[in-house]
Amino acid sequence: MSNRILSGPLAPGATIGILGGGQLGRMLALAAARLGFKTHIYSNVADACAFQVSDAHTLARFDDERALEAFAGACALATFEFENVPDATAKFLATHVPVAPNARALAAAQDRLVEKHFLTGLGIATAPFVGVSDVGEASEAVIALGTPVVIKTRRMGYDGKGQAVARTPFDAPAAFESLHSVPAIAEAFVDFEFECSIIAARGRDGAFAAYDPPKNEHENHILRRSTVPAPLSPARVKDAFAIARHIAEALDYVGVLAVELFVAKGGTLLVNEIAPRVHNSGHWTIEACVTSQFTQHVRAIAGWPLGDPARHSDAVMENIIGAEADNWLSLAAKPAGLHLYGKREARPGRKMGHVTRLKRG
Amino acid sequence: MSNRILSGPLAPGATIGILGGGQLGRMLALAAARLGFKTHIYSNVADACAFQVSDAHTLARFDDERALEAFAGACALATFEFENVPDATAKFLATHVPVAPNARALAAAQDRLVEKHFLTGLGIATAPFVGVSDVGEASEAVIALGTPVVIKTRRMGYDGKGQAVARTPFDAPAAFESLHSVPAIAEAFVDFEFECSIIAARGRDGAFAAYDPPKNEHENHILRRSTVPAPLSPARVKDAFAIARHIAEALDYVGVLAVELFVAKGGTLLVNEIAPRVHNSGHWTIEACVTSQFTQHVRAIAGWPLGDPARHSDAVMENIIGAEADNWLSLAAKPAGLHLYGKREARPGRKMGHVTRLKRG
Repeated sequence: MSNRILSGPLAPGATIGILGGGQLGRMLALAAARLGFKTHIYSNVADACAFQVSDAHTLARFDDERALEAFAGACALATFEFENVPDATAKFLATHVPVAPNARALAAAQDRLVEKHFLTGLGIATAPFVGVSDVGEASEAVIALGTPVVIKTRRMGYDGKGQAVARTPFDAPAAFESLHSVPAIAEAFVDFEFECSIIAARGRDGAFAAYDPPKNEHENHILRRSTVPAPLSPARVKDAFAIARHIAEALDYVGVLAVELFVAKGGTLLVNEIAPRVHNSGHWTIEACVTSQFTQHVRAIAGWPLGDPARHSDAVMENIIGAEADNWLSLAAKPAGLHLYGKREARPGRKMGHVTRLKRG
Repeated sequence: MSNRILSGPLAPGATIGILGGGQLGRMLALAAARLGFKTHIYSNVADACAFQVSDAHTLARFDDERALEAFAGACALATFEFENVPDATAKFLATHVPVAPNARALAAAQDRLVEKHFLTGLGIATAPFVGVSDVGEASEAVIALGTPVVIKTRRMGYDGKGQAVARTPFDAPAAFESLHSVPAIAEAFVDFEFECSIIAARGRDGAFAAYDPPKNEHENHILRRSTVPAPLSPARVKDAFAIARHIAEALDYVGVLAVELFVAKGGTLLVNEIAPRVHNSGHWTIEACVTSQFTQHVRAIAGWPLGDPARHSDAVMENIIGAEADNWLSLAAKPAGLHLYGKREARPGRKMGHVTRLKRG
């Protein structure tokens, strides 16, 4: 069966299906509602927080073809909030309902080695890397790349999960084995000045729009803070936009795309990874822009004109992680936009909410 | 039975009940979700648009005590999106679940004659008025107030419904009878420069916060446009804030309150009416403030600290009325915040959405 294609701009009142029911799905659902759409959330998690704000939801496994078919039948269009949708699920769904972004974008983003080959194939700079499939290759990687080396599982890693560092060639086998010896990628350590990201959108008509890049700071591999604007020259911002646009066009991408970048000493931009979805480092767009990244994604996939990504204020977004959410009352007292995701359990490292503070000029 | 009282700030994860399922309930539900609350919408309309974004809903009549009791049992707190909740409903509900704003505010706002007596009792200026309960009183009212006179039903009027104008004393009986001879109020015509409104909030601790007043323009008795800031001097804005605060304190009000004002020639402020709820003329706060009126209402009723009502931009909000919503694609092309309410039928005069454009300074 061939993939289903959206025949024209999706009229308000239609239902948009969202695969995944976490905070990104929740905020997508809130944005879709603002534009007059209904949403249907599909998740395999019983108390998925996006269920709370959607018109309908399906609780089922991602390999449940009957549930997927019913879901597709209930939606005019489907999208996802995370890139680790099984390939078979994405392909099955695409034959039943128009899906954006496309399966190619998912495939490019869900395997770190495929992603890096894709990027370097476009002539886009990344950290030096090699594939690692056994302990021997792990040792060779360290010899080839120099130390330290970061070994990452090719699939399913996020927030630092599925990563290990080898500081000497002798550490490499143990680092690889600590990741359960699954197919991995070794990346040379980048001596970067800071990290930033491009949150960009591409419409069905090829229109492209990008937000000013934030500077991103991580703690324990989890995003702690995004500050916009990042300390980048206009020329460098233009370069970063060109990279994002190049990636989006190469993938025939539709929707919001995030590109994480290292700004190396001297200013060279190296792509760290791409996320075919709305992104944590773009949450500040809710307060600081008329069109948030969530609204922008809905506009793009629905075949609407892209919204204006202009920023009216400088902003700082900070995540609320794990037990920090217990301080909701003092967080609520700050003059800032508070977002709590409706998650019941504040597990360590879990993203429970975020706060965006605007800086007045 | 005595009224239920909220024992302390409501923790995220709790369910807030909202009586009424129109666009105000919908936007309240979206704001509550952002703060981590679940919502439960109670409406007597089968396809109420707020149902689409709530965690749960009840479709029942407002006099269905079993449904109200079950609703109260499912919520930690209840509020409403419109003031014409039957008095008995509000009182019944208040004995089962904490309700804000209180029944006194509802009573003061849902009867135009009671409202005017309440306001003048506080020493707040209004247009001259008299109660009208038969054709004889209608004629006397015109003699007392001069022409033209606006005769309005005491209850259930909105968007110009339940109003008739008498331009001569001889018109008065027919004007009264055109309103089906229900209890009415006659108001002297005010020769005003423009209309504005104060959207203010009062917290459970008595804290008070007000947004900069917008200038409001009506067409066919329906709000067409709100422009902020209104052309008022800082001293006049201060006067208007004081009026809103006086009203809120007199009612021991908790939540967002709207006060519609006429700015008469010469600058005198006359209160036209009060609405014990979020208000159409405050929709621009979504884009132009970090704390929208909807977020502010949820903060207030939940016993949270009030949010910062500061405005980062000038703004113009325009309603999308009736068949204008058919132009959704061209509306979507404007660089503005577009809101569509998910209503299926675009009946004449029906509020289908709104657009807010920020004006860059």
